[in-house]
Amino acid sequence: MVTAKARAVDGPNKPFRAAEIKRRNLDKKDVLIEIKYAGICHSDIHTAHGDWGDVHYPIVPGHEIAGIVTDIGPDVTKYEVGDRVGVGCMVDSCGECENCLKGEEQYCLNGKIDTYAAVDKYGEHTQGGYSTHIVVSEDFVLCIPESIELEVAAPLLCAGITTYSPLNHWKAGLGKKVAIVGMGGLGHMAVKIAHAMGAEVTVLSQTLNKKDDGLQFGAADYYATSNPETFEKLAGSFDLIINTVSAKIDMDAYFGLLTLDGMLVNVGAPGEPLSLNVQSLIGHRRSFAGSMIGGIRETQEMLDFCAEHNIVSQVEVISADQIDEAFERVLASDVRYRFVIDISTM
Amino acid sequence: MVTAKARAVDGPNKPFRAAEIKRRNLDKKDVLIEIKYAGICHSDIHTAHGDWGDVHYPIVPGHEIAGIVTDIGPDVTKYEVGDRVGVGCMVDSCGECENCLKGEEQYCLNGKIDTYAAVDKYGEHTQGGYSTHIVVSEDFVLCIPESIELEVAAPLLCAGITTYSPLNHWKAGLGKKVAIVGMGGLGHMAVKIAHAMGAEVTVLSQTLNKKDDGLQFGAADYYATSNPETFEKLAGSFDLIINTVSAKIDMDAYFGLLTLDGMLVNVGAPGEPLSLNVQSLIGHRRSFAGSMIGGIRETQEMLDFCAEHNIVSQVEVISADQIDEAFERVLASDVRYRFVIDISTM
Repeated sequence: MVTAKARAVDGPNKPFRAAEIKRRNLDKKDVLIEIKYAGICHSDIHTAHGDWGDVHYPIVPGHEIAGIVTDIGPDVTKYEVGDRVGVGCMVDSCGECENCLKGEEQYCLNGKIDTYAAVDKYGEHTQGGYSTHIVVSEDFVLCIPESIELEVAAPLLCAGITTYSPLNHWKAGLGKKVAIVGMGGLGHMAVKIAHAMGAEVTVLSQTLNKKDDGLQFGAADYYATSNPETFEKLAGSFDLIINTVSAKIDMDAYFGLLTLDGMLVNVGAPGEPLSLNVQSLIGHRRSFAGSMIGGIRETQEMLDFCAEHNIVSQVEVISADQIDEAFERVLASDVRYRFVIDISTM
Repeated sequence: MVTAKARAVDGPNKPFRAAEIKRRNLDKKDVLIEIKYAGICHSDIHTAHGDWGDVHYPIVPGHEIAGIVTDIGPDVTKYEVGDRVGVGCMVDSCGECENCLKGEEQYCLNGKIDTYAAVDKYGEHTQGGYSTHIVVSEDFVLCIPESIELEVAAPLLCAGITTYSPLNHWKAGLGKKVAIVGMGGLGHMAVKIAHAMGAEVTVLSQTLNKKDDGLQFGAADYYATSNPETFEKLAGSFDLIINTVSAKIDMDAYFGLLTLDGMLVNVGAPGEPLSLNVQSLIGHRRSFAGSMIGGIRETQEMLDFCAEHNIVSQVEVISADQIDEAFERVLASDVRYRFVIDISTM
């Protein structure tokens, strides 16, 4: 059993403290990973704060994990000691249901096991990547291509796949006009990926503050949603809209931006129900969908795609002592574009 | 110019009265139709009552029209005097926009011209099928196959195409599990069409009152939505749900019935906004869409499909004097399954 150094919170809105957590002895197919970097995702904040319901404290968040394999179980075939690997939002699933068999483990009918704040098949509360080590079945470990540095790879494991998957599923590509709503951790990845897929990308952000970045990431256009003229000018323009904003927005206004047969996909979920006018959909056979991360096979595909297209996350590396401050800055949208914890400072 | 006998209303909630309306002289591509039967659609009631906004009175509703060609303009090529024809919900569109060029005239970017309660390119208020004659450009006239009697063909022009189009677009067919919500004018057509397409059809109706009919129309199963167990039992079951109910329903409960990548399509629109929880979509990459009638080419395809599969609407034929009573009975869901006015009684 490995004792890992970690940063944990003990209750809603409590600060992080140094902690020690036990990682299980390696099961036959397990991989022990020495974590080098862990991204800070907005979900970490919601979960740590108990916004999404009761959680079992203390909790160690973190599901954007990049590190090095330091030990393997006897039946591991995919990884060797020294391999550069990643772990994302889930560490297990039933492996037997219809969706798992399709490679869509994120939609496991018996419930995927989240990287933290879940209970795994050993009956243990899972703890995430704000820690020095983690043990994960090789089937939920990703290979990080050599060309991607670990600190900029970490956010790909959640922000990357969460945007790649719907862009891939709904076929963003040449000849498609794609809008990305929000230019945060997810949004900036979506812009880069959609552009690399060949789509014509427009960013819809509250203000034009990040316009230069957006254009540099590959957007052809950038509009402020605080300006009502944006919605008139762009009416009926987009084949696909990826909404990365979790806050409640005026859905009907965004549906109005879709073409005939256009699709708006939410990758974030507001805490409260949304309101929409069905006429906004019926008028042009528009659709509204939700999408959640991606399967393991697709996550590897995304990492390979990012390596091929030189796509990484823009990160601000912080030390373990700065996590509380980073949470506050994420809530204030004051980050370009992802905080990543340097685990060596733990 | 032809003077047609008609039934008109003079204001919200006013009764129908006998009226005479003028039909324009035939333009080069126009067809004069002697109407034999006109179906009563729920939209007729909403429009006549002014529920959907101000309308220009007097108004003659009716967009499920079946009749015989009695005269043609000099440039008409598709129809001859004596042909059995139908007219649906629209009588014109711009013909030039992207959507019209695709044959999706119902989504005309410059606005389709509705069969009644619209203003046409001649500047005239359009008046519908509760009348003895109508003049329509041949491009918006449908051929009714010989094997379908006119009185049971009329409802196909709205109820038929409104359900055929989404079933066709989202590929109901062999191996697909399809649920139809509501067993009214639209729902009963949806059951017959989805079954003929090869799908396994389940009806979700408030009660089991029409179960025998549903099974006879081709449903494999029939459940009451008033029973909460229905939603537990059928969770995650359907690839496609066609919601024909215009009233506000608990969307999240219905989303829960969809499989991974399942699609729920509304063909009716409640007057008030709907509320939904995005998590209901995200959890299984489900989608929600809206669909409106169908294009002219697809409407002809639907009529031919119905002829091939012996599909007709179940109708109750009424006289022109019974329209007010029929409206009341439609509002009380007391019709199996469509009222059709015998225009010879006008």
